[in-house]
Amino acid sequence: MKKIGFVLSGCGVYDGSEIHEAVITLLAIDRNGAEAVCLAPDVDLREVNHLNGQETGATRNTLVESARIARGKIRNIAEVTAGDLDAVIFPGGFGAAKNLCNFAEKGAGASIHPEVARLIREMAEKKKPIGAICIAPALIAAALGRDFKPKVTIGTDAGTAAAINQTGSEHVNCPVSEFVVDKEHKIVSTPAYMLAGRISEAAEGIEKAVKAVVDMA
Amino acid sequence: MKKIGFVLSGCGVYDGSEIHEAVITLLAIDRNGAEAVCLAPDVDLREVNHLNGQETGATRNTLVESARIARGKIRNIAEVTAGDLDAVIFPGGFGAAKNLCNFAEKGAGASIHPEVARLIREMAEKKKPIGAICIAPALIAAALGRDFKPKVTIGTDAGTAAAINQTGSEHVNCPVSEFVVDKEHKIVSTPAYMLAGRISEAAEGIEKAVKAVVDMA
Repeated sequence: MKKIGFVLSGCGVYDGSEIHEAVITLLAIDRNGAEAVCLAPDVDLREVNHLNGQETGATRNTLVESARIARGKIRNIAEVTAGDLDAVIFPGGFGAAKNLCNFAEKGAGASIHPEVARLIREMAEKKKPIGAICIAPALIAAALGRDFKPKVTIGTDAGTAAAINQTGSEHVNCPVSEFVVDKEHKIVSTPAYMLAGRISEAAEGIEKAVKAVVDMA
Repeated sequence: MKKIGFVLSGCGVYDGSEIHEAVITLLAIDRNGAEAVCLAPDVDLREVNHLNGQETGATRNTLVESARIARGKIRNIAEVTAGDLDAVIFPGGFGAAKNLCNFAEKGAGASIHPEVARLIREMAEKKKPIGAICIAPALIAAALGRDFKPKVTIGTDAGTAAAINQTGSEHVNCPVSEFVVDKEHKIVSTPAYMLAGRISEAAEGIEKAVKAVVDMA
């Protein structure tokens, strides 16, 4: 059974992984006959109250909160290498741009959590497939732009697309129901909630993208 | 568009709503052409660290945490009546048996959050469909057992089934891929993670059960 690393960044769209995208991806991995290996970095996140959208001033731990989506079955990303995986997928949510890296604050000049950066680079060097959903392609662009110049999509947002292009990567516009494949680097991306107005719209692109990742793995 | 109340109890299997069940239900509601109206009670829950499964001693707020699954679009259940809804669905997770009621501690003698009890009773009196997933049928049994004697399933767990029967309700064994319909009371239930070993197993029964609820609404 193919092992698909699944890198979470917390639990909730505003301070962690987008929950709908995460679960739809886990279901698609299973339905495509592969096994999800849930991972997250052991790093603090800035808590956001999801009822009012405001930061509370408190912190939570990214690995501990990600365990909610993983039903407790999750590993510290520091313990896992590309040799353990056949592919890796990153769901969206602000956590991908705030906890795995600081793209939300720094754009193309983002710095990346060292263990997250290591695993992305290992996967790219071994030509193992990388999937990225919603805003997570910006993380992949920041990690790989200078050396690999990957082609990715976050949908159609012009400002984010420009920041992705500044990393050395190439942004490609894409509708919510579709996905983009960089065949050379085996990188698959889909806009999901960067464009989706309904959960079924996000699901359509994610289900196609996950199938493509598993097929290439 | 049919409006399906969706009553959350937090965000995470051990102290709130089971996240996979919740998202699979939201997606199925949308794909069946209906609209989910997310609801939760404004009540504290006892936080569980999902990495080690232990209570932390801290509390969180059920409505605020449920907002993570609802992407911020959620209402206090106290503000909503059966007149606002065409059906209602309760996902599982320990929150359904710890925050919406105290079935996890008290079994058949459980007391129920007053606004949750009110909405369940209103729906039953108006013969509007009620869906319940995983352990949530125990909540419905505790709320309606004495007066309505509903037929529900939580799968095959003998102890839980016995407690459900003690409420005056009737427990029916059911495999994870199927669901039980009490046609007289329009109550639909499916075992999901009470039995599922994989997310796709939970999804199969949930998708069938949600379709049945929306069709009856």
